[in-house]
Amino acid sequence: MVEEFTSRLRILVIHGPNLQLLGVREPQIYGTTTLEKINSSLHRLAGDLGVDVDILALNGEGEIVTEIGAAAERFDGLLINPAAYTHTSVAIRDAIAATGIPTVEVHLSNIAARESFRHESFIAPVAVGQLCGFGANSYLLGLRALVEHLRGLER
Amino acid sequence: MVEEFTSRLRILVIHGPNLQLLGVREPQIYGTTTLEKINSSLHRLAGDLGVDVDILALNGEGEIVTEIGAAAERFDGLLINPAAYTHTSVAIRDAIAATGIPTVEVHLSNIAARESFRHESFIAPVAVGQLCGFGANSYLLGLRALVEHLRGLER
Amino acid sequence: MVEEFTSRLRILVIHGPNLQLLGVREPQIYGTTTLEKINSSLHRLAGDLGVDVDILALNGEGEIVTEIGAAAERFDGLLINPAAYTHTSVAIRDAIAATGIPTVEVHLSNIAARESFRHESFIAPVAVGQLCGFGANSYLLGLRALVEHLRGLER
Amino acid sequence: MVEEFTSRLRILVIHGPNLQLLGVREPQIYGTTTLEKINSSLHRLAGDLGVDVDILALNGEGEIVTEIGAAAERFDGLLINPAAYTHTSVAIRDAIAATGIPTVEVHLSNIAARESFRHESFIAPVAVGQLCGFGANSYLLGLRALVEHLRGLER
Amino acid sequence: MVEEFTSRLRILVIHGPNLQLLGVREPQIYGTTTLEKINSSLHRLAGDLGVDVDILALNGEGEIVTEIGAAAERFDGLLINPAAYTHTSVAIRDAIAATGIPTVEVHLSNIAARESFRHESFIAPVAVGQLCGFGANSYLLGLRALVEHLRGLER
Amino acid sequence: MVEEFTSRLRILVIHGPNLQLLGVREPQIYGTTTLEKINSSLHRLAGDLGVDVDILALNGEGEIVTEIGAAAERFDGLLINPAAYTHTSVAIRDAIAATGIPTVEVHLSNIAARESFRHESFIAPVAVGQLCGFGANSYLLGLRALVEHLRGLER
Amino acid sequence: MVEEFTSRLRILVIHGPNLQLLGVREPQIYGTTTLEKINSSLHRLAGDLGVDVDILALNGEGEIVTEIGAAAERFDGLLINPAAYTHTSVAIRDAIAATGIPTVEVHLSNIAARESFRHESFIAPVAVGQLCGFGANSYLLGLRALVEHLRGLER
Amino acid sequence: MVEEFTSRLRILVIHGPNLQLLGVREPQIYGTTTLEKINSSLHRLAGDLGVDVDILALNGEGEIVTEIGAAAERFDGLLINPAAYTHTSVAIRDAIAATGIPTVEVHLSNIAARESFRHESFIAPVAVGQLCGFGANSYLLGLRALVEHLRGLER
Amino acid sequence: MVEEFTSRLRILVIHGPNLQLLGVREPQIYGTTTLEKINSSLHRLAGDLGVDVDILALNGEGEIVTEIGAAAERFDGLLINPAAYTHTSVAIRDAIAATGIPTVEVHLSNIAARESFRHESFIAPVAVGQLCGFGANSYLLGLRALVEHLRGLER
Amino acid sequence: MVEEFTSRLRILVIHGPNLQLLGVREPQIYGTTTLEKINSSLHRLAGDLGVDVDILALNGEGEIVTEIGAAAERFDGLLINPAAYTHTSVAIRDAIAATGIPTVEVHLSNIAARESFRHESFIAPVAVGQLCGFGANSYLLGLRALVEHLRGLER
Amino acid sequence: MVEEFTSRLRILVIHGPNLQLLGVREPQIYGTTTLEKINSSLHRLAGDLGVDVDILALNGEGEIVTEIGAAAERFDGLLINPAAYTHTSVAIRDAIAATGIPTVEVHLSNIAARESFRHESFIAPVAVGQLCGFGANSYLLGLRALVEHLRGLER
Amino acid sequence: MVEEFTSRLRILVIHGPNLQLLGVREPQIYGTTTLEKINSSLHRLAGDLGVDVDILALNGEGEIVTEIGAAAERFDGLLINPAAYTHTSVAIRDAIAATGIPTVEVHLSNIAARESFRHESFIAPVAVGQLCGFGANSYLLGLRALVEHLRGLER
Repeated sequence: MVEEFTSRLRILVIHGPNLQLLGVREPQIYGTTTLEKINSSLHRLAGDLGVDVDILALNGEGEIVTEIGAAAERFDGLLINPAAYTHTSVAIRDAIAATGIPTVEVHLSNIAARESFRHESFIAPVAVGQLCGFGANSYLLGLRALVEHLRGLER
Repeated sequence: MVEEFTSRLRILVIHGPNLQLLGVREPQIYGTTTLEKINSSLHRLAGDLGVDVDILALNGEGEIVTEIGAAAERFDGLLINPAAYTHTSVAIRDAIAATGIPTVEVHLSNIAARESFRHESFIAPVAVGQLCGFGANSYLLGLRALVEHLRGLER
Repeated sequence: MVEEFTSRLRILVIHGPNLQLLGVREPQIYGTTTLEKINSSLHRLAGDLGVDVDILALNGEGEIVTEIGAAAERFDGLLINPAAYTHTSVAIRDAIAATGIPTVEVHLSNIAARESFRHESFIAPVAVGQLCGFGANSYLLGLRALVEHLRGLER
Repeated sequence: MVEEFTSRLRILVIHGPNLQLLGVREPQIYGTTTLEKINSSLHRLAGDLGVDVDILALNGEGEIVTEIGAAAERFDGLLINPAAYTHTSVAIRDAIAATGIPTVEVHLSNIAARESFRHESFIAPVAVGQLCGFGANSYLLGLRALVEHLRGLER
Repeated sequence: MVEEFTSRLRILVIHGPNLQLLGVREPQIYGTTTLEKINSSLHRLAGDLGVDVDILALNGEGEIVTEIGAAAERFDGLLINPAAYTHTSVAIRDAIAATGIPTVEVHLSNIAARESFRHESFIAPVAVGQLCGFGANSYLLGLRALVEHLRGLER
Repeated sequence: MVEEFTSRLRILVIHGPNLQLLGVREPQIYGTTTLEKINSSLHRLAGDLGVDVDILALNGEGEIVTEIGAAAERFDGLLINPAAYTHTSVAIRDAIAATGIPTVEVHLSNIAARESFRHESFIAPVAVGQLCGFGANSYLLGLRALVEHLRGLER
Repeated sequence: MVEEFTSRLRILVIHGPNLQLLGVREPQIYGTTTLEKINSSLHRLAGDLGVDVDILALNGEGEIVTEIGAAAERFDGLLINPAAYTHTSVAIRDAIAATGIPTVEVHLSNIAARESFRHESFIAPVAVGQLCGFGANSYLLGLRALVEHLRGLER
Repeated sequence: MVEEFTSRLRILVIHGPNLQLLGVREPQIYGTTTLEKINSSLHRLAGDLGVDVDILALNGEGEIVTEIGAAAERFDGLLINPAAYTHTSVAIRDAIAATGIPTVEVHLSNIAARESFRHESFIAPVAVGQLCGFGANSYLLGLRALVEHLRGLER
Repeated sequence: MVEEFTSRLRILVIHGPNLQLLGVREPQIYGTTTLEKINSSLHRLAGDLGVDVDILALNGEGEIVTEIGAAAERFDGLLINPAAYTHTSVAIRDAIAATGIPTVEVHLSNIAARESFRHESFIAPVAVGQLCGFGANSYLLGLRALVEHLRGLER
Repeated sequence: MVEEFTSRLRILVIHGPNLQLLGVREPQIYGTTTLEKINSSLHRLAGDLGVDVDILALNGEGEIVTEIGAAAERFDGLLINPAAYTHTSVAIRDAIAATGIPTVEVHLSNIAARESFRHESFIAPVAVGQLCGFGANSYLLGLRALVEHLRGLER
Repeated sequence: MVEEFTSRLRILVIHGPNLQLLGVREPQIYGTTTLEKINSSLHRLAGDLGVDVDILALNGEGEIVTEIGAAAERFDGLLINPAAYTHTSVAIRDAIAATGIPTVEVHLSNIAARESFRHESFIAPVAVGQLCGFGANSYLLGLRALVEHLRGLER
Repeated sequence: MVEEFTSRLRILVIHGPNLQLLGVREPQIYGTTTLEKINSSLHRLAGDLGVDVDILALNGEGEIVTEIGAAAERFDGLLINPAAYTHTSVAIRDAIAATGIPTVEVHLSNIAARESFRHESFIAPVAVGQLCGFGANSYLLGLRALVEHLRGLER
């Protein structure tokens, strides 16, 4: 399932629904970290790790399914924050399983400490692994985890 | 959470999936009230109440999420009939919660008297209030309720 | 099921258990709107709508059953806030179903945002419709909804 | 929530449904302790503790709701054995919560060792604390617990 | 548990909530058999069987509890249609269990064919037996069953 | 669904699995009433009521299904004690529903007071009515109930 | 698991409980298609497809188990309408799994639109596939599906 | 509900999410049958059956809802593989129910043998019938079943 | 409940549904141990233990019920592998309970490691004990356990 | 089960896991009452009541089991705050049941008002009684309750 | 998974929590068989079978985990009565699974006939097999079963 | 809750039950990474990050509780792999909550893809965040996440 990476690894990052609102509205609640800042950090870390990242922010379940379906040809791994679709989308799960693209699932908040309908993830069973609760850092740790997984490295 | 309204209140109305079929097909079952008639009534009542309404009919969950995300900048309140998404969409719930836009949820039918999977609403816990069972009148009462809520008035 | 109303419509309003405490005790929590103020508003709106209202505040499930049983002879519709009995009383549901009196159920608070045992209503499936979350205004909107339902009007 | 008690503390004791049958019928099963004996013991202990108690035995849920609603003005605390209503009455729970009267819940028998429908209490979450399983002594320990709670004392 | 009956057996019949509406309102739905006709049939059959019956129609759960508590002194058996309280009243169950009065539970309709919340009965486990589905005849068969149970007869 | 009965009514009685053991083995537990005595009582009561009864004791679910399938041509009603199949047989339920034969379900014991898996009956929703808890008398009352149902009589 | 079919394929068809009643009784409800007509259609289609069919209608779970156990030696595939046993028989499931006979499950009605206890099938997980809702045509489509499956053909 | 078909029947085929990946990626797992081959087979069979088919492959729930809403005007029947939306989309169910378009639901795999969250279908209760487990042949059998249903034929 | 055994103990062994297929078909999966070999081992061990065994292999639930009903007169104990009926047959449970025959339940496989519907046994609560997971040896250990139980021996 | 107490009663007090942290860390949250203070109060009250107490604070489930197993020889009663083990330890329940030592269960907080996994207690069904919600006073009331239970006194 | 046994097989026996109390306290309830007697019987049978046994009685879950972790080096099989930990310990399950030591689970009592929380075993799915209900003999049969399993013998 | 870290941060690492078996036994299943190698990697990364780590491997729930209770005084953060206790230990959860020590939970495997009883974590709701599925790398990423959390940095 692991792709060869003699060439630079290419990682697709997908932000799920509502994440474009991050840090823009009600900063006293959601913090001042905007999606732009997260994306910059991801690009910077990608540079450090020697990989390429493409980043998409998508509100539609079908759009996410379409992008994952297309990704298998062009990317070596997927870093996804499925947000609300984590708990409701069998279609995204099926897209990951059908393409077999190595996937890491991340969440900004600690979903285990939220409403009970957020405790089960349709995505997690088909992902390599999952990270949650570290805010924007979940993405950075997730990118690192994905790259190390793809490189088959355990330091 | 209540916006100032020295200027005219602006209300966004969203009709969820399938509502465009209302009154068009099988009138003997669904009645002859079309979505157009409901929209006209809403505009007329908005005039009476001295508020502005914009009305959208959207079948896509992601589109609704996108419109709510954008609405927070341009509207004071949201009147939504989430239809089928009431019972399946965490993403719309999260959009309402993230933007903090005051929201009233309406339903044409009495959902408590229908199938059990229609008894729980993902939207209701983040709405100001809920109305159901009054047919097209649910929208009109809902608009009135939302406007009165925004004006902080209890007669 | 709709009564003729060539004469003035007569509406029975029933406040369920504990509502007499409204606004009297701990106003910092429950607000300063007393049941008397709600009743005055209801009478005022009834005048505007050209209908008569009788109002009862009852703590006993059996008393409410008895009043609904008797109401069918003397009233055209029932506006009820079943309060705690919403979630526990099959008897009140049966009274409404057996008499067939057109009924609108109202709640001050948004019960979908409270404890899970408050999410199911025994009353709602036999009511015309339901409103919740608008504070005292729930009653006023409910009265309006009931009268318009009885008059068969959709503006 | 704790009342001042420069004057003597006044405690309301409510016996719920069926408790008037205690010790009267089938003593070989239910023991020979009658409600009268429990009441005498309560009055005696109240004297020792320097508090006043009023005692009511009520079979009706609505009556209990009414008494609790009225009690907030005249009593500093409530000692209640809700008996069967423990497991079915949201209305009594709401009465205690709405009045905010400090409440101790007692049971003669160990309800955890009985049928599973007796394992959850609607009352307990709004009470200060709960005692069960000590027979008539549950009331005496409960009165002591309530008085000490009201006096803010932990020996 | 069986009382001696050298003297005539005395049976208490209790009609639970809403049964006073039987046959009075909407006869096209509920039939034309009124509670009065059922009571006459019960008195006639009681005469045939050589027993006395007292009949009460009560809407209040607490009132029913009180009557059962008092009945143990004056009656040999209880014939009860708990109606809606069948499914919600632990207090009536406890009254029957505490007094130990031999009890037969009857229902006009076949409750197993109605809503699922009507499938469990709190009363049945403490009753001698249960009959349902025979309309007014449920009462007559139930009286016969109770009398034969009390007489220890199986023809 | 009610058959004409200008001629004598013909009733099929089916005893379900294990009932042949009644009163034969361990009489100290199961009593001394044998199935033969119950059958004699049924024939005697049938004579009194002016109807004919055929009685079958069958241990096999398929045999019971076959007999019910054949019964519709030759019988006016079915009196059945489905015993253990009450809680497990959709096939017997379907046989009763498919033939439309008026059916009364009886049980010797009070199944509501036994294990929870005996609380739901697959048969009850398609029966006219149900009786349980009266020992052998359940059959006699059930025969009477069925005959009176078929004759459309309510004394 | 697929048998060789150089010789003609031999298919066993099993009709489960109550299907012998089809079209015989209450044709206004169940239609006029008898089991005989279905069997004729099956034989005709078998001829068209160049396969042999044997047809059994069995009411007993044990009989069906026995026939499936014996079928593995003499048949290449099984077409079964397990009727009521669909939802209750682990034994038939085990017979299919133990013999490994390729099996297609059919139903006349759309079981997903019926009672919830008909939504799960013990048979489906061990079948090749399932068809339901097409009336008698379910059998014909099922035979075609089974034959095409056995021939390994996908047109 | 059945449309007239004096003219050629027009059938809409909808492939749900991820089906475009069929046979393209990981053929050792998913087989070499591509969606193109299935579509060719469908067109060929449509020719044989004398009907017209239009085929859409859509990843978005909202898009599918929109197409079904529009289909009622232009098509006589719907053949749909809702894929992942089978288990999560109330909106597609409502679209089928609201338009009343005769619908056959198909699945490539035997969903009863997969994860438990794939055992319930929101679509099946509003479909004519359902087929699953026959791979690409599910579509062909489904088209045949739909056409025969529309023609009211049972061979 | 323990029988006297001055004479040789007589044990009935019942193999439930599908066990006749053991070792006959698909030996690579189910092993080469046939039911005949198990029966020979049972007879040999019975000889060693000085007891008599009769062995039946039955596919029908009703037949098993009938044999258990008859066994109480002629056997001292029952060794049963209820196979699929373990999880569905209340009738076999009732037969064991009604006859009071000391019963040991055995299973070839470790049912706790299979599908969740195989985790609960209707038989186990009325058996002396249960063994599972030891293949054919489960029967031999079970026979030994039953004989030692009947002899009241614990080495 | 009540021990003789001609000599001084000996009571074992066990504090379950994490209670050693009480009042030491984060006093603003957990209060300033340390376990030492509770222990002093217990010794003082024991002196007043004329009984001896030994006190243990144990974090290990197995250690608690061992101490209870040993306690039956040396103590007349057990006062235990099982803390987290209340909801997870069958072993502690079994230790209390196996030794038969009269046990009173206490909790500092009102566990009915906390997370739902804290609502069921494995310990309560085998205890004499339970107290919760009175902070440190729960222990003192519990000691009093236990001593009075052992002395068979109800004042 | 089966170890070679050219040398004598070494079996570890672990008694779980509370088993040291067996036969010591309350012999009228738990019998007079002490753990010492069971251990003697085990050693005697081990001698007969030509195997070595080491026996541990441990109250702590962690201790049991540690012993199993260490056992894989020194033992060929594990005979364990996990007692209360059967139903609560994932850690013991993981220890057995991680070491892969062939394990037989035994219980003195018939756990299927006890409280429902004792019906599921975390251990059974990773054990070879399970025995319960034969008192002390469960251990002896279990040792025999384990040895025969390790020797690959089925007589 | 974040500690000052002018001095070097001190991190406690706890390995839960069975982790000492890692890589030692059955390397073909569990890989060759031993706990020692993980610990070395942790020390190396700690050096890189400029923090101190202490590492404990503990099989006992009580021991883990004790260490966490003591850790609050000596450590700034906790990195824990609770292994099996993740799903069963309220006591460890309470220890983390009571001490308030910032905690990161890690798992080697993707627990969402394993048995359903491993899907809920008692620990996660009181942790800062959670990582799983990255093998030994879960620890390294977790240490990094914890240190960055403690330093309040989001790059």
